[in-house]
Amino acid sequence: MRAVDIIEKKRDGQALSTEEIDWFIEKYTAEEIPDYQASALLMAIYFQGMSRDETVALTLAMAHSGEMLDLSDVIDYAVDKHSSGGVGDKTTLVVLPMVSAMGIPVAKMSGRGLGFSGGTLDKLESIKGYNVNLSDKEFRRQTQEIKLVLAGQTGELAPADGKLYALRDVTATVPSLPLIAASIMSKKLAAGAHGIVLDVKSGRGAFMATVDDARELARIMVDIGTDAGRDTVALLSDMNQPLGCAVGNALEVKEAIDTLKGGGPDDFREHCIEVATYMVELAGQGKKWTDHDTVRAELEESLKNGQALDKFKLMVEAQNGEVAAVEDTSLLPQATIVQEVKADRSGYISTVTADDIARAALALGAGREKKGDPIDFAVGVEVMVNVGDTINDGDLLAKIHANSDDALKSAQDYVDKAISIQNEKVEPLPLFYGVIDGRK
Amino acid sequence: MRAVDIIEKKRDGQALSTEEIDWFIEKYTAEEIPDYQASALLMAIYFQGMSRDETVALTLAMAHSGEMLDLSDVIDYAVDKHSSGGVGDKTTLVVLPMVSAMGIPVAKMSGRGLGFSGGTLDKLESIKGYNVNLSDKEFRRQTQEIKLVLAGQTGELAPADGKLYALRDVTATVPSLPLIAASIMSKKLAAGAHGIVLDVKSGRGAFMATVDDARELARIMVDIGTDAGRDTVALLSDMNQPLGCAVGNALEVKEAIDTLKGGGPDDFREHCIEVATYMVELAGQGKKWTDHDTVRAELEESLKNGQALDKFKLMVEAQNGEVAAVEDTSLLPQATIVQEVKADRSGYISTVTADDIARAALALGAGREKKGDPIDFAVGVEVMVNVGDTINDGDLLAKIHANSDDALKSAQDYVDKAISIQNEKVEPLPLFYGVIDGRK
Repeated sequence: MRAVDIIEKKRDGQALSTEEIDWFIEKYTAEEIPDYQASALLMAIYFQGMSRDETVALTLAMAHSGEMLDLSDVIDYAVDKHSSGGVGDKTTLVVLPMVSAMGIPVAKMSGRGLGFSGGTLDKLESIKGYNVNLSDKEFRRQTQEIKLVLAGQTGELAPADGKLYALRDVTATVPSLPLIAASIMSKKLAAGAHGIVLDVKSGRGAFMATVDDARELARIMVDIGTDAGRDTVALLSDMNQPLGCAVGNALEVKEAIDTLKGGGPDDFREHCIEVATYMVELAGQGKKWTDHDTVRAELEESLKNGQALDKFKLMVEAQNGEVAAVEDTSLLPQATIVQEVKADRSGYISTVTADDIARAALALGAGREKKGDPIDFAVGVEVMVNVGDTINDGDLLAKIHANSDDALKSAQDYVDKAISIQNEKVEPLPLFYGVIDGRK
Repeated sequence: MRAVDIIEKKRDGQALSTEEIDWFIEKYTAEEIPDYQASALLMAIYFQGMSRDETVALTLAMAHSGEMLDLSDVIDYAVDKHSSGGVGDKTTLVVLPMVSAMGIPVAKMSGRGLGFSGGTLDKLESIKGYNVNLSDKEFRRQTQEIKLVLAGQTGELAPADGKLYALRDVTATVPSLPLIAASIMSKKLAAGAHGIVLDVKSGRGAFMATVDDARELARIMVDIGTDAGRDTVALLSDMNQPLGCAVGNALEVKEAIDTLKGGGPDDFREHCIEVATYMVELAGQGKKWTDHDTVRAELEESLKNGQALDKFKLMVEAQNGEVAAVEDTSLLPQATIVQEVKADRSGYISTVTADDIARAALALGAGREKKGDPIDFAVGVEVMVNVGDTINDGDLLAKIHANSDDALKSAQDYVDKAISIQNEKVEPLPLFYGVIDGRK
């Protein structure tokens, strides 16, 4: 086989065979195919697309490019979740303890973030001492002992994805649905998940701008999971306004803990319960959990009775985090300046544009622009309103947590731009636009 | 500027500005933009095309990526020719002495060949001692003294083209008309031509399969030349059957010399006269040569009265070649085996497929598959028939010049496949399909 022939075939709109895809990915991972041929193939895929079979073959080839994690010694049915990323998305921090509280072991490998805010690992590190770097042995032992782990990758999962993603980023080949789907799913397959709940967001703060695009991406990912023999469900959720109130690392951890204590913002709590319900349904297949409403009710109860919070505390303790900060969130990092933003008129909230709130958080120092940049755990934005809310002149709209006046100024402009108020009544945004269930 | 933004813009079908194209080519030539971004851009161009303005900008940027040759100290109006390449195309060897015989200085830089047969430089090297490596000083002196030079590049012309061509070759981005046109024209512009005659071939032995594709490519090249301020004319010529009889280095030199002596195959002589006529017309603008038929007649005369041959001899002598081999072509390299191929039936020649004859020549060793491979000057094929010829059982169809029995066997199969005879009368193929004249 020759790489140039494979590029030409795809360029001309023909479907690549599984053998061709396997060969290309294997040789590319081994650095026997250079980046310039891979980028030409990626651009050809951007234009010509990939069939379902091709996309599945690509995903499996990428998944098999490195270690295939097998946790079967400590976990019968591994259930995982993935969010396509959004502003204020601290869902994992709440959902995993909830699922674990039902007696279902969940051991998740998360990543760091690029952009407006940190990733799950960064957020967890706002808890003093929290260790995200577990060895494979520690990861398995904790899974067995307390049925809950949230840490970084223990091995090199899907290295082809890492290489290809870095290449796509600099060759304008990121926005291709088969490539996006293969990238996400290859890591999930390599991480050994039997069941996968995908949270695919759309809107101003999401990678997918429209619900239609999100639905198409979700469909492809569910198809990949199904063809690869995994139970896969995708929820289509809204990301026009931030999820919950808090955007920023320690602020989000606080909001997650508030939620685990039975409080937290309504939209965020509802989102977590729905995601957790599907995870439990998948993990409990053929067992006691079959009825969606029953599972929901049990999960809601886990927030009220403190069982989910207890699980979270056990995990923080096991990973050397400061448990006292979970009990008293005022021990989490605090910004020096907290500036309130108030309404200058009465009316209805018509926008809380998630992308502008994200820019505010980035301006404050909550995220990083490139790998390795330091982040400030304490800073961020709390947005007190949702689209559709009725507001009176002088009501609190947001709080900006800053560590410098310059950053505050810049963030304030973005927050002002994000939140708009109109005279006419506005319909609230839905939380979800639908579900794509690969089991049906 | 960022390379990724330029790639994205082209990917999305927008026209690139001259500034963007200049910047990309400059940085790519300086190795500040990596191959993987260039190949992504090339693939995006393959799919989205380029406007006339973009193509001109790309060509000029490539031309200016290295030395811009200026021969104005030794030549008032530099006229150049370019052939898109064909089987048996030894036109340059005849046309240049003809034009020079009219008192017009012609100093051409040619290349070596890849594929079925050598390039012009390889062919010339079948004349013992012929030196293609002239210094810039020698090149200019010979232009001044005898008004005729045929040599390799003296400097580094259009290095961006060399880099991009090598990249296109391995990334399946060769067949893009704006990229092909820019590649060819960048070298002509860098070589300092004021007037350019393009010989754009189509058919089974050409890069362009159809006349329509050839016409489109020719149109783009003429537009580039015109917009860059050069007089540009393109002839659309046939390449379904070989041009002339001889395919192979020394065989082609012999046929060129025969033609310069007033003989040679009719189709080849006619082709040379037509190309030469346009070159003289361009070079003589506003001077005495304005009437096409008058110029043609003078050029035909130069073949009959030996003036073109004399020019060729002067050049061979000046470049240290064996002049005796021009006088007596039996001194040129000769193959050990000459096998005749005869008709096994009567009828009309319906095909002499140029690509199969090319494969025969390559099998004999007349060409090279990769840069630096040695070539055998002596071997090749002489095809005695043209499409439309009437043939009797036992008539000579071709002669195969081989240096090994294995190669002969393999070449014989290709020649048998190339030439077919049918009962029904067949129309001869045209030499030309049209002219695109940038002066009109």
